[in-house]
Amino acid sequence: MLRFDSDYMEGAHPKLMQRLVETNLEQTVGYGEDNYSCQAADLIRSACGCSDALVRFLTGGTQTNATVLDALLNSWEGVIAADTAHINSHEAGAVELTGHKVLALPNHEGKVMASDVERYLKEFFDDENHTHMVFPGALYISFPTEYGTLYSLKELEELSSICHSYKIPLYIDGARLGYGLAASKDVTLKDISRLSDVFYIGGTKVGALFGEAVVAPNPDLLPHFFTFMKQHGAVMAKGRLQGVQFGTLFTDNLYLEISKNAVDQAMRLKKAMIAKGFLPYVDSPTNQQFFILPKSEIDRIRKFATFEIWAPVKPDLCIVRFVTSWNTSAADIDEFIYKL
Amino acid sequence: MLRFDSDYMEGAHPKLMQRLVETNLEQTVGYGEDNYSCQAADLIRSACGCSDALVRFLTGGTQTNATVLDALLNSWEGVIAADTAHINSHEAGAVELTGHKVLALPNHEGKVMASDVERYLKEFFDDENHTHMVFPGALYISFPTEYGTLYSLKELEELSSICHSYKIPLYIDGARLGYGLAASKDVTLKDISRLSDVFYIGGTKVGALFGEAVVAPNPDLLPHFFTFMKQHGAVMAKGRLQGVQFGTLFTDNLYLEISKNAVDQAMRLKKAMIAKGFLPYVDSPTNQQFFILPKSEIDRIRKFATFEIWAPVKPDLCIVRFVTSWNTSAADIDEFIYKL
Amino acid sequence: MLRFDSDYMEGAHPKLMQRLVETNLEQTVGYGEDNYSCQAADLIRSACGCSDALVRFLTGGTQTNATVLDALLNSWEGVIAADTAHINSHEAGAVELTGHKVLALPNHEGKVMASDVERYLKEFFDDENHTHMVFPGALYISFPTEYGTLYSLKELEELSSICHSYKIPLYIDGARLGYGLAASKDVTLKDISRLSDVFYIGGTKVGALFGEAVVAPNPDLLPHFFTFMKQHGAVMAKGRLQGVQFGTLFTDNLYLEISKNAVDQAMRLKKAMIAKGFLPYVDSPTNQQFFILPKSEIDRIRKFATFEIWAPVKPDLCIVRFVTSWNTSAADIDEFIYKL
Amino acid sequence: MLRFDSDYMEGAHPKLMQRLVETNLEQTVGYGEDNYSCQAADLIRSACGCSDALVRFLTGGTQTNATVLDALLNSWEGVIAADTAHINSHEAGAVELTGHKVLALPNHEGKVMASDVERYLKEFFDDENHTHMVFPGALYISFPTEYGTLYSLKELEELSSICHSYKIPLYIDGARLGYGLAASKDVTLKDISRLSDVFYIGGTKVGALFGEAVVAPNPDLLPHFFTFMKQHGAVMAKGRLQGVQFGTLFTDNLYLEISKNAVDQAMRLKKAMIAKGFLPYVDSPTNQQFFILPKSEIDRIRKFATFEIWAPVKPDLCIVRFVTSWNTSAADIDEFIYKL
Repeated sequence: MLRFDSDYMEGAHPKLMQRLVETNLEQTVGYGEDNYSCQAADLIRSACGCSDALVRFLTGGTQTNATVLDALLNSWEGVIAADTAHINSHEAGAVELTGHKVLALPNHEGKVMASDVERYLKEFFDDENHTHMVFPGALYISFPTEYGTLYSLKELEELSSICHSYKIPLYIDGARLGYGLAASKDVTLKDISRLSDVFYIGGTKVGALFGEAVVAPNPDLLPHFFTFMKQHGAVMAKGRLQGVQFGTLFTDNLYLEISKNAVDQAMRLKKAMIAKGFLPYVDSPTNQQFFILPKSEIDRIRKFATFEIWAPVKPDLCIVRFVTSWNTSAADIDEFIYKL
Repeated sequence: MLRFDSDYMEGAHPKLMQRLVETNLEQTVGYGEDNYSCQAADLIRSACGCSDALVRFLTGGTQTNATVLDALLNSWEGVIAADTAHINSHEAGAVELTGHKVLALPNHEGKVMASDVERYLKEFFDDENHTHMVFPGALYISFPTEYGTLYSLKELEELSSICHSYKIPLYIDGARLGYGLAASKDVTLKDISRLSDVFYIGGTKVGALFGEAVVAPNPDLLPHFFTFMKQHGAVMAKGRLQGVQFGTLFTDNLYLEISKNAVDQAMRLKKAMIAKGFLPYVDSPTNQQFFILPKSEIDRIRKFATFEIWAPVKPDLCIVRFVTSWNTSAADIDEFIYKL
Repeated sequence: MLRFDSDYMEGAHPKLMQRLVETNLEQTVGYGEDNYSCQAADLIRSACGCSDALVRFLTGGTQTNATVLDALLNSWEGVIAADTAHINSHEAGAVELTGHKVLALPNHEGKVMASDVERYLKEFFDDENHTHMVFPGALYISFPTEYGTLYSLKELEELSSICHSYKIPLYIDGARLGYGLAASKDVTLKDISRLSDVFYIGGTKVGALFGEAVVAPNPDLLPHFFTFMKQHGAVMAKGRLQGVQFGTLFTDNLYLEISKNAVDQAMRLKKAMIAKGFLPYVDSPTNQQFFILPKSEIDRIRKFATFEIWAPVKPDLCIVRFVTSWNTSAADIDEFIYKL
Repeated sequence: MLRFDSDYMEGAHPKLMQRLVETNLEQTVGYGEDNYSCQAADLIRSACGCSDALVRFLTGGTQTNATVLDALLNSWEGVIAADTAHINSHEAGAVELTGHKVLALPNHEGKVMASDVERYLKEFFDDENHTHMVFPGALYISFPTEYGTLYSLKELEELSSICHSYKIPLYIDGARLGYGLAASKDVTLKDISRLSDVFYIGGTKVGALFGEAVVAPNPDLLPHFFTFMKQHGAVMAKGRLQGVQFGTLFTDNLYLEISKNAVDQAMRLKKAMIAKGFLPYVDSPTNQQFFILPKSEIDRIRKFATFEIWAPVKPDLCIVRFVTSWNTSAADIDEFIYKL
């Protein structure tokens, strides 16, 4: 059976496993203060072009979003996000758990539009009753979005500019950042770092067993972040585990290289599906591909490949999602195309 | 200057003030355990036709909503509400402060539609990933709504039936309940009590200095509610203040009688505005009246009457709100009509 | 029956009631933006000798403590307090509800000792693991304490000095501030204002129907405090109610004058009890008096006077509390002494 | 350098690493629904003798404590614990973050005494004002405690009996459960399972890279626990990682076997220290050993071995902690004794 359910179905890239085995019985201090974590942080700073950045390693995406946003937001503030944002839909209210509202704007293929954000901010501060309302205290976007789409460099620049003019931080959820960067025509990791205030580099879905690297180019934005992490249950005793993994991912460009494979195979899958006459739900350039399929086709394809039913459209029609990963082989896609 | 900004511009109805003065130097026990509070609770139980109901007095609407919802919801649950619901828009995130998400549905003149609620609930539980999402744990509606509109008896019965079939409580925010009951063609206080699981009878906007009476026909739904109130800072040391006031409001039908005046005067104002050619924004039968006015008219009318600018429509056009109260006199409206 | 259960058994001082009645049907804007509230704030600023202070009116003590502390503390911080502090024992966890730990130190007749506070702070920051712990972010004291005792001016200066050297705010719970000031040998309202960072002037227990005035001599310490209040359900629609009351309390020195009466009567009661051979539990100079009484005496005195059982000491021995108020008359105490 | 800082200085036991490598490129479903997790849960149920137990895998101790307690406690409840409890001292207020107070009792060598717990509960419910206070909603103990000490079977039975008679759950923090069971004279895993309501089996400190297995013999106590975990950021996408690890730890008794080594080596270290004339701070039978050392000795020993300074006693005297682990070799202790 070919499996396209998600990009977290395997363990880690073999190079990461190898390093974890090699270092397994070494003794290091805990809580991310070890040399492996320090080296990994330096490699990330260098890749991002921000030598002073705070870099901290957390365990998973929901945890990272909740911890960072709780740290970025004042108590009277919420976070603006697309209604399709992971924090608004699939994180079980983790942001609200510690007191912050998600201020949802309509999505456009998973993205928020700069003009919507600007109007929201303007109308909020123009409203005579705004002190009775939740203040917008940050903007959350995901790159790629939950629908696999990407902001262009121009779109990122516009969002960044609006955020800065209203003095609210721009936070980028990079759960699949590698796949986004590998697919983008014009956005680089240095752009992400330059245009956002805080972002995270997803490891769980891009080659690691687990782990997300939070990067704050200006560390003053996240004072006492270690204690925040501890309070949120996000500190690993053996922090070196993420250190070893991210150190390996950011050596010899491994992170982007393995991301590129996922995107390449996704493009082959997409092309084959379209050639077969299936309608893409959005035009995603990354490793998540959404199609609108009749149930008969879903049943037929599920005989040789797994994938998720995303949402119903009509009684007989569904949006489905196919996901490739760093480990999807060209042979897998050959077989998929052959059987399709 | 005529004032239609809101229905909380005066103190209390003179009968309430008189009773507060008469009882002022009596000594009673605190925290709502006094005889005045007990008597008021009994009068409310009787008016509601639910002899076993839990009745507790809180101070204001935002506090009441946050406290009741925190008590009704499990930690993994949020509350369904119209996007225009007061809890979603004008309570500064009080519901989220203690960990609960507001699950917003589109409003229809301030109301949620039963079919939308049913679809939301059905799709939620059908969704294979729903354990990753905030569970819908209660339905919040306001009667009247934030736009002055009313649910019909049939609409309330439908919402109540859906809630019961999904085993989630229906909570009614009655900040202006008196005005709603006075204006409704078919809904009585006993219907509210029969069809909802918890509701509150607003005092602040309907004749009291302050105070909201929470009513839970089945008290098992709100175990340890006093401690919840205390934890939310919602217990008054001198609980008798609400007891005295609500006892007076629920003697000789005062609550409904004074509400009726507000509605009568609002209808006169509405008729005059329409006659003048102004467009109502919604067709409200209660004491809040919304119109779409050009700025020139806003400026002109503001010379003799105050009212709130609710929201911009176009650069030169705004939604505005006029509110009458139990204390608005026929002479006030005469003068308004004359000057209009 | 003579009643010494508490100092919130009556309504308001007659002068306050009179002003509430006189202003009852005036129409004002809401939420504390009215002229009465502004005037009261000015009178308070003047009495405190801090012309720039932020002054805001809340409803009750628990609400005030939770709201102010949530505003003062960063998310990673808790509040140092005596183990007997009201916030630690009798507020149902309102401080914890919004995420903050109470860091309890041993009390000495209800007070925290400066040396204990200093040691706690020093040991905290010396501890190599302190980033895994809740940071001390404020010091809470009450004046008078929950046992009626008072800090001397010197003690306040020491606490203030320690707080400032560690850059944490000193917050004073003044639920019974009037009684404390009336009884203190050396502490004035201006001292409270000079030595604390935020404090509140209790109205509920000192002549008002309800209401607490939060004072922050440096308003920068409480940014967006109105929205905090709203989020905590602590904003009254008819804010003028506290404005009218505090305006009256701070006219012609009424607040201190009526406080003095309570203290005078408490001293007479205390003297009589001691003369009768009863042991004070602490040496309180204010309107709360604690004695250790055998059950037989409790039963006997309860035939003509009410008071609270505070805590058991032995099977047959309890700590009890007698409280006088602004409204306790000399005749009440005459009668008490006569029957004792 | 010999390292006795903690028991989380290495990676995983080689057998676990081997299984992680072997299964690394297998594709499984996520979120703990995979076969490895199911098998591990079954092995744990079998070892605990509770075939219906809920078993869920989380990532670390602080996260586990906060998530379980938030799930066990009602909003108006706090958790009783020793003042030295990890949740009270070294988890950065994670329990308070989601609204619950830690109700601290004095510790006795890290343990709470049954008589103290019983008195606390009795006095709480006897107190006429207890509805103004945080209700005790669970009892937290650690086995072994933060000082390495153990409850006897009789002590556990007493605590369990008190909890059941007051209908509050007993929760056991088993961060080092293996070491406790290996050292206990009379407590078995089945006893832990029989006497507690919820407990967790620590993996991070006992042979795993990371991971804690929450066990609730009666799953009704933790309804919707998966969503709670998600909301707390405690769900791992690749849940199989804990499944593989715990499956290996609970095969062929590995968990207890490797724990026994740590205890054996700790006993040799302890004996040597005592023989050298050093005073144990508590009499710990497990892998954590506390001594009171003068600074000169601390400096001397630190030349060949690392350990933590736990707390100051006097200017020249400190409590220090030595920790052995599953990986401490007899040769390490030989060398330590030789150099001591």
